[in-house]
Amino acid sequence: MSVMIDIIPDGGVTSPLGFSAGATYAGIKKQSRDALDLSILFSEIPCVTAGAFTTNKIKAAPVILDKQKLDKTGHAQAVVINSGCANACTGELGMTAATATADLAAKLLGVASDMVMVASTGVIGVQLPLDKVQTGLANIHLSSQGGSDLTRAIMTTDTRPKKIAVTVKTSGTIFTIGGTCKGAGMIHPDMATMLCFLTTDALVECDFLKATLDDAIAASFNMISVDGDTSTNDTVLLMANGLAGNEAISSGSHLAAAFKQALNKVCLFLAKCIARDGEGATRLIEVVVNGAKNLKDARLIVRTITSSPLVKTAVHGCDPNWGRIIAAAGRSGAELVSEKTHVYIGEMCLMKNGLPLAFDKKAASSELNKEEVVLRVELNIGGDSATGWGCDLSEEYVLINSEYTT
Amino acid sequence: MSVMIDIIPDGGVTSPLGFSAGATYAGIKKQSRDALDLSILFSEIPCVTAGAFTTNKIKAAPVILDKQKLDKTGHAQAVVINSGCANACTGELGMTAATATADLAAKLLGVASDMVMVASTGVIGVQLPLDKVQTGLANIHLSSQGGSDLTRAIMTTDTRPKKIAVTVKTSGTIFTIGGTCKGAGMIHPDMATMLCFLTTDALVECDFLKATLDDAIAASFNMISVDGDTSTNDTVLLMANGLAGNEAISSGSHLAAAFKQALNKVCLFLAKCIARDGEGATRLIEVVVNGAKNLKDARLIVRTITSSPLVKTAVHGCDPNWGRIIAAAGRSGAELVSEKTHVYIGEMCLMKNGLPLAFDKKAASSELNKEEVVLRVELNIGGDSATGWGCDLSEEYVLINSEYTT
Repeated sequence: MSVMIDIIPDGGVTSPLGFSAGATYAGIKKQSRDALDLSILFSEIPCVTAGAFTTNKIKAAPVILDKQKLDKTGHAQAVVINSGCANACTGELGMTAATATADLAAKLLGVASDMVMVASTGVIGVQLPLDKVQTGLANIHLSSQGGSDLTRAIMTTDTRPKKIAVTVKTSGTIFTIGGTCKGAGMIHPDMATMLCFLTTDALVECDFLKATLDDAIAASFNMISVDGDTSTNDTVLLMANGLAGNEAISSGSHLAAAFKQALNKVCLFLAKCIARDGEGATRLIEVVVNGAKNLKDARLIVRTITSSPLVKTAVHGCDPNWGRIIAAAGRSGAELVSEKTHVYIGEMCLMKNGLPLAFDKKAASSELNKEEVVLRVELNIGGDSATGWGCDLSEEYVLINSEYTT
Repeated sequence: MSVMIDIIPDGGVTSPLGFSAGATYAGIKKQSRDALDLSILFSEIPCVTAGAFTTNKIKAAPVILDKQKLDKTGHAQAVVINSGCANACTGELGMTAATATADLAAKLLGVASDMVMVASTGVIGVQLPLDKVQTGLANIHLSSQGGSDLTRAIMTTDTRPKKIAVTVKTSGTIFTIGGTCKGAGMIHPDMATMLCFLTTDALVECDFLKATLDDAIAASFNMISVDGDTSTNDTVLLMANGLAGNEAISSGSHLAAAFKQALNKVCLFLAKCIARDGEGATRLIEVVVNGAKNLKDARLIVRTITSSPLVKTAVHGCDPNWGRIIAAAGRSGAELVSEKTHVYIGEMCLMKNGLPLAFDKKAASSELNKEEVVLRVELNIGGDSATGWGCDLSEEYVLINSEYTT
């Protein structure tokens, strides 16, 4: 079956049929009046919804609440998102605020409270100002053009909005997937929160939606590293309202592969946006590992390399110090055999079978000066591969993250 | 039994009876003529010797060689150490160079080759210049005052020499433990190598020596973090020549506790020297975790906090952003219950039972401006504790590690 996946110019979460969004400045962020800090994503009808949440043992109130609701119903119709306050380490009062936020929005939107998810990003240990949320919610105007406002409203230290939408065309069917995310740029007082909201008008069976989302996240958001800190608030929500009128997609159905492919594309695009926009980052680093014993090992090595401060600073300084790459691979815990391993910067092989090769240092340095730097390790001990993304570590990162608050 | 442990002023590896050392500039480091880069540590008689080596799967040639020799004999009489070249990722040629270095030294010293250990630190992927090593070895003059020269000769980016010696007096017995180390300051082209050489004139039974060393390392060198990168060359060697004439110390003997205590003290002192001298570091960070379910969990949380870039930059900026501390604890993988957890900066409690406390931000900021910063997490779910050390992350770290080499 032929599948066409096309990017919609300026598309986002409101590109799929039946979704609307809006945002306002509620005064939660301590910023100028034109900053947006509260937003709503809404679907005309309830959506089959899949979620993925932080693995941090300290979970913010909205994460706890969303998990409870999703476990109960597997559906959602709206999400309320605030920036400027993480509502984490806020105890019972924080849970009350998260619950009340959903309840208030549910009332305004005319849907059941269980159908409203919440998400927060910002300072830890500060209570959510419920009065401001209440006033703010009433000010939000929902529109099918509101996706861009929502994208802006969830940004904290992001320097660029991050959004995409694709249409998927197969014989007789067309559906759309949209998405937006924020993070993981971190600046005091924010945490490394990654929030991502995905929408589709495809009709998708519940279990398949969750499994497909998990797979897409494993290969995208879980393969990026800015500084290794996992937030208390990380959340990905995928809402499918079925308004495209397609036959329900499940693991056996003929549209399964197309849906997977399109969702992977959307997640990968958004994940790379985050890595590229890492705090103080000047370059995107793509790390490829081939020939691993298994996928777990391949991903482990990728993640160890993308999060190594020595690798990140070497890339920043355009220093082809490949010893740092192989040393990171070696300490990752994954299987490797030095005598079989090759290391590449771009297409230049610097280490072959565990031994250094003579190379043109100037050319290797130029390779590291590109906007997208590719580092590759060939293990030659198995058939599994993985790719991940990170960014260089600059003085700017330290400056941003050590800013005085007192 | 009363035990007195006293620090010997300006003591080091040659403080215990029967040890001598010397160093020279062999031209391995690309530095000025007065830099030392090759040294020998020697004992008059063979020593019961315990070693601990890097867990990196990529192991430098000297690490492989030392392990082979120690497994075979459990004894050593000398160590040859070079800086400026790691002899890692150097294949068979590298193994030949390491073996030849030991053989050359053995001949000069009049001992068996098996009795000579080797250790290297410096650039990865560069062959050890054996001719320079040969000439250098012949130039080394051994003396019982040579400990300081050895300490200088193993330094790479260290800004301070790191050495200590203690005498241990109990009724009727006196013995000495000395030690020196280098690392984990890293600058291109060096790796994060930690080398440590420990000497004692106590007579110690082999298995007890190894077990005591492993315990001491677990609570000291394994509890420091500068940037999380583990080198291909990390080595700790402990040589015991028995010249103090004490009754052999084994796990049951009356001197066992005193020996343990003294060795722990030496290792802890040296480990803290390394953390304090981390590249670009301006402050030592001590992280204490109490009330953990078990020791493994306590250490896991300590290590996650000491290696968190967000915590390290917050300390650098004197920013009492305690959310970063609890978030790091939460993502460590260790058991914790938010509602039972307290977080302290110095003696100031900022989070109690998972909830933020009002606190004097100026005072907390001053606490973080001290030369030694103490961060503490009270878990209140068990009886185990751990302490570890790290340093702040400064712009200087990035500058040092992104230096051009081309």
